[in-house]
Amino acid sequence: MPADGDVEFRSDVTVELVKAAAQDSDVIWAARVSTKGESSLEDVDADPEKALGLINYLMRDRHGTPFEHTSMTFFVSAPIFVFREFMRHRIASYNEESGRYRELRPVFYVPAPERPLVQQGKPGAYEFVEGTTEQYRTVVAETEAACRASYAAYRAMLEAGVAREVARGVLPVATYSSMYVTMNSRALMNFLSLRTKHPESHFPSFPQREIEMVADLMEAEWAALMPITHSAFVSHGRVAP
Amino acid sequence: MPADGDVEFRSDVTVELVKAAAQDSDVIWAARVSTKGESSLEDVDADPEKALGLINYLMRDRHGTPFEHTSMTFFVSAPIFVFREFMRHRIASYNEESGRYRELRPVFYVPAPERPLVQQGKPGAYEFVEGTTEQYRTVVAETEAACRASYAAYRAMLEAGVAREVARGVLPVATYSSMYVTMNSRALMNFLSLRTKHPESHFPSFPQREIEMVADLMEAEWAALMPITHSAFVSHGRVAP
Amino acid sequence: MPADGDVEFRSDVTVELVKAAAQDSDVIWAARVSTKGESSLEDVDADPEKALGLINYLMRDRHGTPFEHTSMTFFVSAPIFVFREFMRHRIASYNEESGRYRELRPVFYVPAPERPLVQQGKPGAYEFVEGTTEQYRTVVAETEAACRASYAAYRAMLEAGVAREVARGVLPVATYSSMYVTMNSRALMNFLSLRTKHPESHFPSFPQREIEMVADLMEAEWAALMPITHSAFVSHGRVAP
Amino acid sequence: MPADGDVEFRSDVTVELVKAAAQDSDVIWAARVSTKGESSLEDVDADPEKALGLINYLMRDRHGTPFEHTSMTFFVSAPIFVFREFMRHRIASYNEESGRYRELRPVFYVPAPERPLVQQGKPGAYEFVEGTTEQYRTVVAETEAACRASYAAYRAMLEAGVAREVARGVLPVATYSSMYVTMNSRALMNFLSLRTKHPESHFPSFPQREIEMVADLMEAEWAALMPITHSAFVSHGRVAP
Repeated sequence: MPADGDVEFRSDVTVELVKAAAQDSDVIWAARVSTKGESSLEDVDADPEKALGLINYLMRDRHGTPFEHTSMTFFVSAPIFVFREFMRHRIASYNEESGRYRELRPVFYVPAPERPLVQQGKPGAYEFVEGTTEQYRTVVAETEAACRASYAAYRAMLEAGVAREVARGVLPVATYSSMYVTMNSRALMNFLSLRTKHPESHFPSFPQREIEMVADLMEAEWAALMPITHSAFVSHGRVAP
Repeated sequence: MPADGDVEFRSDVTVELVKAAAQDSDVIWAARVSTKGESSLEDVDADPEKALGLINYLMRDRHGTPFEHTSMTFFVSAPIFVFREFMRHRIASYNEESGRYRELRPVFYVPAPERPLVQQGKPGAYEFVEGTTEQYRTVVAETEAACRASYAAYRAMLEAGVAREVARGVLPVATYSSMYVTMNSRALMNFLSLRTKHPESHFPSFPQREIEMVADLMEAEWAALMPITHSAFVSHGRVAP
Repeated sequence: MPADGDVEFRSDVTVELVKAAAQDSDVIWAARVSTKGESSLEDVDADPEKALGLINYLMRDRHGTPFEHTSMTFFVSAPIFVFREFMRHRIASYNEESGRYRELRPVFYVPAPERPLVQQGKPGAYEFVEGTTEQYRTVVAETEAACRASYAAYRAMLEAGVAREVARGVLPVATYSSMYVTMNSRALMNFLSLRTKHPESHFPSFPQREIEMVADLMEAEWAALMPITHSAFVSHGRVAP
Repeated sequence: MPADGDVEFRSDVTVELVKAAAQDSDVIWAARVSTKGESSLEDVDADPEKALGLINYLMRDRHGTPFEHTSMTFFVSAPIFVFREFMRHRIASYNEESGRYRELRPVFYVPAPERPLVQQGKPGAYEFVEGTTEQYRTVVAETEAACRASYAAYRAMLEAGVAREVARGVLPVATYSSMYVTMNSRALMNFLSLRTKHPESHFPSFPQREIEMVADLMEAEWAALMPITHSAFVSHGRVAP
């Protein structure tokens, strides 16, 4: 049974690629079932240039379905407030650790010093800027104290014999959780278009920094698996086909 | 700006039917496009007995699609831990109040005295039983103290100029939120089959009591809109077609 | 039992709005649950200008979910090859007349004289141009003769006692069918972005003319129900949010 | 350019497993993220008996999500009328050969002698029985003649310079097509529960024989990949969790 001294604060998120069946060639095979016999789209297998051309054409004209015949499973550790946003993406499969079936561990998110803390501007066009040292100290002190108090209350209820699903009510949304998520590359592109922010993005997006940290790590894994598709995604303004 | 005295504890959830386009006749029209011309299924419009017979037949043989041409929008207020489970249902549309765009109000869930607090048995077959008065007092005292401390930390960060999306990390999953959810009657039946527990259910389910409270209120609204479909759902073991 | 003389050829498609729960105000209510309290988004109810502003903002920044709390049911009559493309859209509910449960009627699609018949250019960038009178005569003559022959074969098998689901194999994809389809306005915008072709479209699309005829009729119904949303869709390049 | 002599009639369907990331262990890993720490569910990795127990428990209590972290891609060749039914399953990814982009080949479905041709009973409870030799001869003769006539009309239009998408209208739904389809094992179980007919099925189903032929081949591939899950599916009445 963890003592209060076991409470842990982290500022990172982790993403592990558990398994994948996702290659650029999956896209090409699926696309070619439609077009076989068209001479201008022939021979993509033999010719990397043509493979690139076909994938660029699919991205540009938003033929999205060939990108679906792929599958990636990630194991993600992040605070609950990140998972709340993540699970709004419905074209994906999820299994998250359960606060009903297991006792939750006392690991909580506290922003890193470089995390911008202050929001300026008006709704829909907020910008975030660095906070002062004083503000950062307030965030750390208030977050740590509140999380310790919440966890102590959780433990007190469990020790009194109260069910986990009741006791967990006091745990904050900064509590770390973990999940398996499986997505295809089309759904992942949609996720990335909304949950990352890049100057070259065709459509604006305003992700919360913490889900963007998860998205960035997922993007790096995906780019290594499907470099041609990733490159076409970036060069077409990070718009999901 | 709310003072600590404004912190509110509730034990209920609320469901308001905002709008609906959902009638038993919608199911019949959609089913009849398939079967028109079949004499045994004719004349359901003229004859309530036949309408009942057609809907029972669809339910029994799991012809689910005719139940989809319906739409109900609910406004739900409940703690965040309920919404976490709710949004795992992907065949639905959601808009929830945002902790990034608005300051969250200090309203927290604490179980009512009749809520069973103690879990017995083994995973997959837990039963819940009443707790002792002592246990209930522990739950109330710990929950209230932890929620007050969390909210004070949230306010302190906001007053220091920290962004809402950062400050909210300390708020517990017992915090009330609200959302619009839109579902068709087939998706609703699936939701009810998993999130309510009835002796007559064909398949077992083990919902957490708080989401079941939401599901019960939704079921009552739906039963009033589509009484024949509801009755067929119940008499066929609460299995979604 | 229809004689061969009953065979009918049509060149049109029909769309009937059967029911709808879809108004611009549905979008505003759903969006405001997120943003309530933000002064710049207040008072949209009282002020049509602000309603327009909010919907334009949602469209521009691709906040798609508020557009989902709407529902429209259409009854569509069109050839099978149109339904084959239509049903690739998975965020929708369908019930189509069944060739297993009912005998299909001898109604077949033949292009109207103004339908461009000749395809030029290369894959992904085809253009269609008018055919010659000779070409049109060929299309009409060949289509009518083949459909009559197919239907005669269908009837011959039925009269020999063969099951409808076996006999229908000979019926051409030009055979008319009918279906109920229910969609929300976000899914409809995605459908329209891919199945209509407009000079002002931000992304190119190359719909087959016959499904575009269906899409145009659906768009007209929708524009009457949700004029502000429709106008924002058009002015933002017909991109689904 | 194929001459009429090239017209081909087949009575089979084919299914090729193109790639898969689908093992029983995927289900176990995903399930364990929820339950880790529960002693009764520990050690499933080390113990095949426990793996079987966990999967049986998930199937019985209809915990469906752990079965989703799997992916199988099949290449299917079958008549269009099979694909029309197949694509009603929306939790899947499809790419089918396109009659707009390619010229379709003259391959048509004609039932094999053992295919029951006669339907008896009433809607919702049809049974199929063998036809007479005379009936079978009628089916073969009428189908072959109609398909040859349709294909000749298609070719005549193409040779006159008419676009493929216009000419194809005359082709019958017995025309063979091919597609890639990707599904996870939960969606596949739902497909199998509706598109196969077994005495041990808990819920009745009335699939058309030709889609059942496809489903049977898919089931055999899946059973080899995930034998424990398949066995649990069968022993629990072929109900998708």
